[in-house]
Amino acid sequence: MRSDTASPARDAIGLIAGGGTLPLVLAKAVKARGHPLVCLALDDADASLVSLADHTYHVRFGQVEDVIAALRRHGARRVLMVGRVSRTDLVDRGDALFRRWLGEAPDRRDQTVFRRGVQRLHDLGVDVASPLEFAPELAVPADVLTRRVPTEPEWHDIRLGLSVARAVAALDAGQTVVLKRGVILAVEAAEGTDAAIRRGGGLAAGTVVVKAARPDQDPRFDLPTIGAQTVALLQDVGAAVLAVEAGKTLLLDRHEAVAVADQAGIALVGVDVAEAGR
Amino acid sequence: MRSDTASPARDAIGLIAGGGTLPLVLAKAVKARGHPLVCLALDDADASLVSLADHTYHVRFGQVEDVIAALRRHGARRVLMVGRVSRTDLVDRGDALFRRWLGEAPDRRDQTVFRRGVQRLHDLGVDVASPLEFAPELAVPADVLTRRVPTEPEWHDIRLGLSVARAVAALDAGQTVVLKRGVILAVEAAEGTDAAIRRGGGLAAGTVVVKAARPDQDPRFDLPTIGAQTVALLQDVGAAVLAVEAGKTLLLDRHEAVAVADQAGIALVGVDVAEAGR
Repeated sequence: MRSDTASPARDAIGLIAGGGTLPLVLAKAVKARGHPLVCLALDDADASLVSLADHTYHVRFGQVEDVIAALRRHGARRVLMVGRVSRTDLVDRGDALFRRWLGEAPDRRDQTVFRRGVQRLHDLGVDVASPLEFAPELAVPADVLTRRVPTEPEWHDIRLGLSVARAVAALDAGQTVVLKRGVILAVEAAEGTDAAIRRGGGLAAGTVVVKAARPDQDPRFDLPTIGAQTVALLQDVGAAVLAVEAGKTLLLDRHEAVAVADQAGIALVGVDVAEAGR
Repeated sequence: MRSDTASPARDAIGLIAGGGTLPLVLAKAVKARGHPLVCLALDDADASLVSLADHTYHVRFGQVEDVIAALRRHGARRVLMVGRVSRTDLVDRGDALFRRWLGEAPDRRDQTVFRRGVQRLHDLGVDVASPLEFAPELAVPADVLTRRVPTEPEWHDIRLGLSVARAVAALDAGQTVVLKRGVILAVEAAEGTDAAIRRGGGLAAGTVVVKAARPDQDPRFDLPTIGAQTVALLQDVGAAVLAVEAGKTLLLDRHEAVAVADQAGIALVGVDVAEAGR
């Protein structure tokens, strides 16, 4: 029997990194757990990833063959896929392998492309992992995180908004809904969360912003993510509440996000969907 | 037994008119059928309604008591409600009676407010009628109306888009979805159809624009409506297809709309939803 101290070095982990701070947070979490880190930095990836990773490769979206080669070179059999990627990048990009995968897909919805990619990567010896495995502390708890709690009409909007956002997310359109007093002001699609918050928040003061996961959310891909920047955007447009699905939403820079919300009088809430549905 | 020639004069019809050309088209249709017309013109109503109507009253959104008084004065027991109204007008507007109706409503969704209004108007002796009763020729047939027919991938997007648009409309958010190759580019909410078409169409060339009715659409209220202006907007953003639900969508200025589409190489399609679902 092998003792713990004699266990082999931890396995190398790959990180396909898009834009934003989530890849940085994940890179730190992977390193903190003692894994060698192989970073595949996309165009928008933060430049400081280079100093965190053991090996960094700059790749463009869809250069699958380069990604596989880099991961194999360093023995990384598992990879995280995080960070912002422009959805329009999905059209007419990538190497021959990636274009073949796309060509086989019945459509180019995120979920279709992701599921197919995960299967093909697995066939090639690489498994996609969930960010929650390496940084479970990022998950928003079912709780009111701020000093201000939602009012009764705001709770009504939160429950309605969650059911609408989950339905829209199930259609693979977007994850965010902005509403007030039961009136749906904005529904997100390819324009992204920030644009949807600006559009809906611009129509009325004191709106409720809700972000939900798909009912069948795969935690390895595109988990709803918020941070201090999201809260600052709500403050910009005079929104009143940011409600997200507990357990399935990642909260970056929690301390700062709550501080900004408290200062702006915004309620920041994680909702247990099973609970809310009652 | 009364003979046809001895039948009493046709009953007066009310027309609560918002913005756009639909109220004008309806006013002409009502007059063409020999009804006296009592027009209740909202702020955005076309000024030329005055010359078509037998009686015109200028009212603001939610002045229900003035509307009822005007209709009673001229013996109009049925009323049409058509034309564009800014959804944000629903908040904090109207007379005491309207505010009481709103106060009783569980939320301010269009459907909630409309259904409550219809019931209360009925109690007060006024019934809301469907535009399709007076102008059935406006309904889009299940057919390709243009020279260009959709390609196979476009038909795929039309079917997917209709199912998404119907689902979103069922949530009382919006009726319009813009997509391409299965990727949902824009979903309409309170910003309106034109803004959604601009947003989604701006993300890619050759998009498919789909407009659907709610699955439980009440034909008396907010029927999906398109016209030459909608087609011109698709041309502006380089969209390829405009598909709508046959039988439940109104097409204004059909001749001009088809001419603009033909000139721009856009396919204009009415889809039988039961047929498309197969």
